Amino acid sequence: MVSSFLLPPMHSKQSPNPFRARQERLRALMESRGVPFILVTHLPNIRYLTGFTGSAGILLVGPRAGNLWVDPRYTLQSREQAEGIEVIEEKQGILKGAAIWLKKNGVRAATFEASTLTYAQFDQIRKEAGEILHLKPAGDLIEELRIVKDRGEIEAIRRAGKVTAEVFTELLPQIRPGLVEQDLAAEIEFRMRKKGAEGAAFETIVASGPRSAYPHARPSSKALQECELVIFDLGAILSGYAADMTRTVYLGEPTRRVRSLYSAVLKSQEGAIRSVQDSTPTGEVDSAARRILAKHGLVQHFTHSTGHGVGLEIHERPRLGKGETTCLRSGSVVTVEPGVYLEGFGGIRIEDTVLVGPDGPEVLTPASKECWVIS
Amino acid sequence: MVSSFLLPPMHSKQSPNPFRARQERLRALMESRGVPFILVTHLPNIRYLTGFTGSAGILLVGPRAGNLWVDPRYTLQSREQAEGIEVIEEKQGILKGAAIWLKKNGVRAATFEASTLTYAQFDQIRKEAGEILHLKPAGDLIEELRIVKDRGEIEAIRRAGKVTAEVFTELLPQIRPGLVEQDLAAEIEFRMRKKGAEGAAFETIVASGPRSAYPHARPSSKALQECELVIFDLGAILSGYAADMTRTVYLGEPTRRVRSLYSAVLKSQEGAIRSVQDSTPTGEVDSAARRILAKHGLVQHFTHSTGHGVGLEIHERPRLGKGETTCLRSGSVVTVEPGVYLEGFGGIRIEDTVLVGPDGPEVLTPASKECWVIS
Repeated sequence: MVSSFLLPPMHSKQSPNPFRARQERLRALMESRGVPFILVTHLPNIRYLTGFTGSAGILLVGPRAGNLWVDPRYTLQSREQAEGIEVIEEKQGILKGAAIWLKKNGVRAATFEASTLTYAQFDQIRKEAGEILHLKPAGDLIEELRIVKDRGEIEAIRRAGKVTAEVFTELLPQIRPGLVEQDLAAEIEFRMRKKGAEGAAFETIVASGPRSAYPHARPSSKALQECELVIFDLGAILSGYAADMTRTVYLGEPTRRVRSLYSAVLKSQEGAIRSVQDSTPTGEVDSAARRILAKHGLVQHFTHSTGHGVGLEIHERPRLGKGETTCLRSGSVVTVEPGVYLEGFGGIRIEDTVLVGPDGPEVLTPASKECWVIS
Repeated sequence: MVSSFLLPPMHSKQSPNPFRARQERLRALMESRGVPFILVTHLPNIRYLTGFTGSAGILLVGPRAGNLWVDPRYTLQSREQAEGIEVIEEKQGILKGAAIWLKKNGVRAATFEASTLTYAQFDQIRKEAGEILHLKPAGDLIEELRIVKDRGEIEAIRRAGKVTAEVFTELLPQIRPGLVEQDLAAEIEFRMRKKGAEGAAFETIVASGPRSAYPHARPSSKALQECELVIFDLGAILSGYAADMTRTVYLGEPTRRVRSLYSAVLKSQEGAIRSVQDSTPTGEVDSAARRILAKHGLVQHFTHSTGHGVGLEIHERPRLGKGETTCLRSGSVVTVEPGVYLEGFGGIRIEDTVLVGPDGPEVLTPASKECWVIS
């Protein structure tokens, strides 16, 4: 593979308006926080604000205008994609180009994205821009904006969710003892792409039997066996946007214990989804899931948080965890994924990608949760 | 997908000896550079030194011992994998844990990996460790060590190269006009996994016709047509190690121009491969490729560098570019991938993963370059 050509998705751009609107929302937020310039280095944030999908770029957003530094590979592409932004082709390093621009233009105060800018990059800007420039962390302004998705974003996630649900629904009748976890994962990702996905949003999980008790299990060379639980955690990317869904199936006639565990997790998930409403604190969705599991004496087996935002990244704001106070907003898209994990026995997790819609929660990964028994 | 469970490969570990040997090589290098402690945060470096494959961890290597901080998800796994390293389970943040340890142990000078540590992480360590600690960039010590692969590493890359070559060789007879780039890419990745790969080392490139003139083209919904060049750039990961290979095919009876372009690129690649020898400066491999293309009047169409190291990462040291002075060493593994790109017409690139072996260069991606015409 050609050096330094790490390849993000390129695809037809949305109408330019959403990007301008996002830039305006950012400027309003910058003004309210007293932020004069922000140097955007996190690529999903650059894509969010401009539509530019290249694998390298630096965006500077100022009070009135925006500049995008790219290397020669991306000059044409960025000029097509990032309408209304001044594109600057830079052969000698884009970070250096941006720093020198700040110096030449006498900028005295700018902010940066401290969670992704490396120390080496920080140091380079400081050296190139000189002592006049006061640099400080911006806070996660753009990540905050991204909590509320606009129409185009919701449409993209809806399509990703549809492909994800379809792939699972079509594969379900073929799941049987003897199939190998890794092969099933490969089959799922292959089918996503055949349906037009750019790829999988993350490495598909297929974890069977006792391995299903590990929430971070990778698909292995283990074959599925009768009377086992199998967790499938999958998500497609379309137009750069991800979906995320988990279903758990049982291979055979479930025992009473398995039925009662499954029913408890399903109730917990459905209850939590009902709480996915405009203005609900994300910690409250987490509590809703836990309260129901507690009623069934299972809450101690739920060992991770209830969900996370999903969009241009598979994990983004907000986090749906204990005590979180960020509120959901109309247009937020989050996962709801309670699970119980019993060591040596197995795990059950049920997850959907859920939109906070105008009429309440809308599930964007519409695969049945009732056909979980394969006999 | 469960929040913050981003999933690296887990697999059977190598014998513990290579990791101890790598740690000793690192300690020798640290001593020669006057580096007392190094805080390792780049995950491929942690894996290289300890065998730990988790998605989160902080390693501190000191003059005598090493400590690995992990969160509770990885306590068991890290104790199994990172033999000889003291594993510290940390529930309140692993970076904080490491910083507090430095403070408690009165460490006054430590180094860090500036190319991957974010500013926010740097700031957190500084705050938690207090003013006694003098922190400075380590330089890329571990990346330097990784330029020479040991036996286990070479074996893993060899297997990845074999799978990569086999997949292409088996697919070749099926390539024909009408097939869609995206579907071919999906098919390639599916076949890699069926052959035991953990996945693709990067997004497979299938670029046909005029699109083959863009070295960073992504597979699109375009169908292959007669009398077109098609570039396939693919690589499997096995046991965490990547291979990287490109082949270009022509669909139909090639014109004289296409034949002569292909022959020039092939000669350039073969010439460059011959120069992949112990003690050759990497810039010399790049010159070898360019000299031959220049003879054919094509060097201005070769718009990227000749290759890069490959191993735990798809792009690692050394870079095979103009004027690079780093020398290849016995045990280095690099790609050799000259190409010519003619806008509006198409591109030709031929790439292999090549080991600097005891008897000279050894190609680890043994797929034929002679069967490039599909009629």
